[in-house]
Parts: sequence; structure tokens; C-alpha cells
Amino acid sequence: MFAETLAAIHPADPGVLAEARAHQDRLTKPRGSLGVLEEVAVRLAGAAGVSPPPVPEPAALAIFAADHGVHARGVSPWPQEVTVQMVANFLAGGAVANAFAAQVGASVTVVDVGVAADLPDAPDLVKHKIAYGTADLSQGPAMTVDQAVRALEAGISVARDLVAEGARCLVTGDMGIANTTASAALVAAFTGRDPAEVTGRGTGIDDGTYEHKVGIVRAALRTNEVRDPSASPSEALRALAAVGGFEHAAIAGFILYGAAVRVPVILDGVIAGAAALVAAALDPAAIDHCVAGHRSAEPGHAAALAHLGLRPLVDLELRLGEGTGGLLAHPMVCAAVRVMHDVATFDSAGVTEKPV
Amino acid sequence: MFAETLAAIHPADPGVLAEARAHQDRLTKPRGSLGVLEEVAVRLAGAAGVSPPPVPEPAALAIFAADHGVHARGVSPWPQEVTVQMVANFLAGGAVANAFAAQVGASVTVVDVGVAADLPDAPDLVKHKIAYGTADLSQGPAMTVDQAVRALEAGISVARDLVAEGARCLVTGDMGIANTTASAALVAAFTGRDPAEVTGRGTGIDDGTYEHKVGIVRAALRTNEVRDPSASPSEALRALAAVGGFEHAAIAGFILYGAAVRVPVILDGVIAGAAALVAAALDPAAIDHCVAGHRSAEPGHAAALAHLGLRPLVDLELRLGEGTGGLLAHPMVCAAVRVMHDVATFDSAGVTEKPV
Repeated sequence: MFAETLAAIHPADPGVLAEARAHQDRLTKPRGSLGVLEEVAVRLAGAAGVSPPPVPEPAALAIFAADHGVHARGVSPWPQEVTVQMVANFLAGGAVANAFAAQVGASVTVVDVGVAADLPDAPDLVKHKIAYGTADLSQGPAMTVDQAVRALEAGISVARDLVAEGARCLVTGDMGIANTTASAALVAAFTGRDPAEVTGRGTGIDDGTYEHKVGIVRAALRTNEVRDPSASPSEALRALAAVGGFEHAAIAGFILYGAAVRVPVILDGVIAGAAALVAAALDPAAIDHCVAGHRSAEPGHAAALAHLGLRPLVDLELRLGEGTGGLLAHPMVCAAVRVMHDVATFDSAGVTEKPV
Repeated sequence: MFAETLAAIHPADPGVLAEARAHQDRLTKPRGSLGVLEEVAVRLAGAAGVSPPPVPEPAALAIFAADHGVHARGVSPWPQEVTVQMVANFLAGGAVANAFAAQVGASVTVVDVGVAADLPDAPDLVKHKIAYGTADLSQGPAMTVDQAVRALEAGISVARDLVAEGARCLVTGDMGIANTTASAALVAAFTGRDPAEVTGRGTGIDDGTYEHKVGIVRAALRTNEVRDPSASPSEALRALAAVGGFEHAAIAGFILYGAAVRVPVILDGVIAGAAALVAAALDPAAIDHCVAGHRSAEPGHAAALAHLGLRPLVDLELRLGEGTGGLLAHPMVCAAVRVMHDVATFDSAGVTEKPV
């Protein structure tokens, strides 16, 4: 499933990119006056292979939930059971992600890829549990490579089902106490930056815990001898397994499937950014199909986006995860694309164009 | 009508602001993790006088169209007839504002407050023409004070009708070739900044035209002897009449009416920012009811927002006007408020709160 997905990914079509760019310039607005949104629409045309590209509605949010062995090292002030409590909150419709999804008309699917407890069945819960949480990444590999590939295929499978049910935009979400620690380790590994540059305070930690967290990330990279994960797909998978989480692997698969079927993927925060680095190492063309929904307050997120060459749409100091930043961006992405369908050209509207 | 509207405006309720802040902290998310959006929701609660405040849907966009005598001075490369051509484009549904409004479910009303041509009747066109464009602000007052008040009352009247028809959020829009020149003059007048700091390139001008435009703004302030427009409402009206446009006056009235009936107003770009400075000089409490939809590429807009103490939600280098930036922000404003209605508290959801 993983190999088939990779084989189906194509980069943006350069001819369609040029066509979309030219179309933007004929619309009744000063050239470039939609700023970053023009680029979003042009990129999605290139990714879709057709200009204008389809308006990416409806959206489907998948919240990949998992636990982390490194939690035992005291990197977060939140108890691990909050992961399972928040899964219940999502399924009851009581979390911020539910409110935002309702606002933008997106569906919400929760995926257990590695929560450290058995979860009762629920209509919006998909069970792909790989294990009851990862191992402690500071002591050795968080997962085996086989587990990482299974989590990745879980993400592919979820994306495939959502697209089959009619989703035309995939939004990444995540839940997992301590997952910013694994994200920092992945970002450091895949961008080559120092752990101190890319480790943040997650949902809120004091100075002492922060220093400890940086040390844990540093230990994870050293213990697992992570070096150049972008050198080859197998190195990328080894690094993912060594310092990632089940949700990172699953989100990487979710991205790859979107790219394979040319359905745009809106990335949420630092967990998605870290997962996108993995996807890019597996196939750089996958990123042509991604939009950076927002930039979170985590420093590793900015580093990941810079490495991927993506500019975030929402920049409002969100640091919640769950897919909240991605959901907020969805109406803007749709608006950007809708312009290419609905807006008149200077010729058709009889509007005088500025003399060049 | 103007006096009645001013008399009805109340500032945010401090008790409700505190209540909304406390409610935010009980919701199942780390404190502060929604960043700027928490502040938006809290401010709207204070403005509404109730926590949680109503979700501000549906939105109504009003595009105030007018021409500017200063166009004759060569401050824009676009011919003046583009104003009337774009009005036709809005009414035909072919402009970017229409596409964005369709995306967010907002109605579009076009208001002629001073277009330099007679316009045919149309269902979505409201006629409040004060004159066929303003006089050249660099040679003397752009309007009489009486004209400015009539334009302001046109804005009040449009807002009143939209709210009566069910709008629960007002979005400002504008169309008028050369209106960034008048905006720069208003921003310089009301913030005390130098014209060179607050004059921009509008929809796109070369270096020579830019220098000329700064000189025109400087001449407007000198010729009209604009000094301290925030000193009193009458000084504010005199400055508005001297260097503003009919759409600035109308948008100021539109804001005041929203504030008077506690319906939030989402401000678009630099034209709205300049108009909001006028509204704030007439009654500072009006700004408690405003949300800055976006920050445009015009330098005067950032200066206006800083003066008003507003933080923009969208910052994507848009420089189109029409209400496009305000419309993009609308789903985020709704999402911010919806959180206060829909999201569970730690207690109700049985989620363990982080130890403080």
C-alpha cells in the first residue's frame, strides 16, 4: 500500500502552473493584489493538473491520536490520560476542533494509532492501534521500522476512506500528550537544526522543564544515531521510527495519499510540519499538494515550514493542535480557488485594465 | 440620525470582559492556546454585553463606491471610469468580493455614495449619491461638512437596513479609484504621522508617481490646515470633509451604527482603517465593536491599526480592497466565538487540567 501510494505521486504540472498564473493576471483585480492567496490558487492548479483546480470542498479532518513513551521523562505537565480523555471529548463534539470543523463544514474522524489505553467503539473513531504508545525515544527507537510503516499505512487507509466518502480536502489533526517532544526531534533530524532551535514549550512548560526537554531531544538524536534522514527513503523511515510518534507516521501517510490522488492536504501545526518533513523525504513532490494552514507558536514549526518552502496562511499564535489551525485556513484556501472559477476577466467584464 | 447613533454607543462591558476571560480559561484547551482568537471572542463578548456573545452570522458586506477629485492629479494609473465599471462588475457577481462573499455566505450590497456617473438601477445597488465625486483635496476641502455628514448618515442608513434584514455582522467594503490617496491623508491627519510614512502604492504605481502622491497628501494637509482632528467631534468632521472621501464618511457611519446596536463590524483594509480613525475620533467606544479583518500592504493601514490598538487577523499581502480582507476574516471571527458556545469545560468533559 505504501509503495503503491508513493508510485502514484506526481509533482505539480509546470504547464498548468503557467496557465493558472496567466489566468490570475486576466482577472478583474490589480495583478498580485490577492497576495499570498494567488500563489495558493496557482499551486493547487499545478497540483491538480488542471486550471482552475476544483474548489477543495468539503474538507475532512482526521485527528490522529497516540501516546509517547517519552512522556515518562517529564517533558509535559499534562498527565498522559489526557490523550484518551481528549479523544472522548472529540467524539462527544466538545473540543475546539469540533467547533472549528462545524464552522467550516468539515467532518471529524478520530484515529487511534497508538493511544495507551483501549478505547470503546464509537461511530467517528477508527481503530488502527499499532501499540499502546511508543517506546521512550531518548532510550532507543520509539518504534520499529515495521511499526512506523504500519502507522504510515494507517494514515494512507484513513485518507483513502475519507476521499472515497467524498472529501476533496484533507486536514491533518493530532492529539497526543508529549507529541511536541517527538516533533522537535523529527524537525531537528530532518532539517539539521540544533534541538535548542526547534524545541518549544508545547502547551505550556516552565524554564526548567524546557531545558530538560531540549536535553531529551538531544539525547534522542544521539542515542538513535540519527544523521542524514533525507539521504534515502529507508533512512527517512529509520529516523521516523527512531524519534517520531505513531501520529507522525500516520500523518505522513495521510499526506502521501492526498498527493497520490491529487486531493489537497492542509497541514496543521508542528506535528503536521514534522510529518510533512518525513513525507518530503519519501517524495518531495508530495509537498506540491500541501498548503500550510497556519504557523504555530512552536519554533520547530517555523523551521519545518522554511525547510519545506511553505508559507503559512494563519499566524495567530495558536498552539493547540487538533487540526485547529488547518481548519481555520480552509475557507481561505477555498476562497483563493473560487476566485479562479467565479471572477470575471477584464475583457469579459468590460473593465479597463491599467496601462502597463 | 447621526446624533442619535452616537448617543446609543456604549463601550465594552468590563464585567462581561472578565466573565468571558474566565470562561475561556475553563474550556478544554491549554490556557491561551487559541492565541489572538481568544482575545477576539472576549472582546466581542464585552462589546455585546453578554458572554458568550452571539455567533456573528450571517455577515453582510457593503461596498461603498465613490470617486475622488484628486484623481485628476495623476495619483493612480487607473482611469476613473474603472470605479463605475467595477460597480457593474460587483452587481453582476464577477468581482473577487463576490467570490469571497459566496464562500463565507455573506450578502453583497453596493452603495453609490459619490460615483462620478449616473448608475442604472439594480437590485443590489443602493443610491445615496452625495455628489459626482469629491473636489480635489489638494486644492481645498474635498467635501463640505454638510456633505460629509450626509455621507456618514448614508452609511448609518445602510447598516440599519442590513441589520433590519438580519445581518449579525457588518463587513466594510470600498471601491473608488484614487481612494488610497484620501486614506493616506486621513491617516496622516488622525495619527499625526508624516505623509511619507503612511502613503502607499495603492494598487500599483511607479516611484515617480509615488513621490508625486506623497506630495499631494502633504499639500492636502497644508492647504486645508488640518491640525488636531481628534480634539473634538467637530474637528474630526472638518478633517474628514477636508481630506476624506464619501466612502470614508459612509464607512465611519456604518461603523458607528454597528457599535450603536452592538453588531460587530469587521474592518477591511486601509480605507476602512482611515474611516475607523474618524469613527474613533467621534466616539472611541465605537472601536470596541470592531475587529480588524486584515492588514493590507498599504503602510497607512498598519499605522491606523496601531493607533486604534487593533490586531489584524489576516496578513497575506492583500491590497485589493472591496471588503476582501474583511470577508476572509469572517469565518475566523465566527470560529472564535463558536468556541465559547460549543466547547466543553474541563469539569463537564472529565478532562484533567494541567496542575498550575
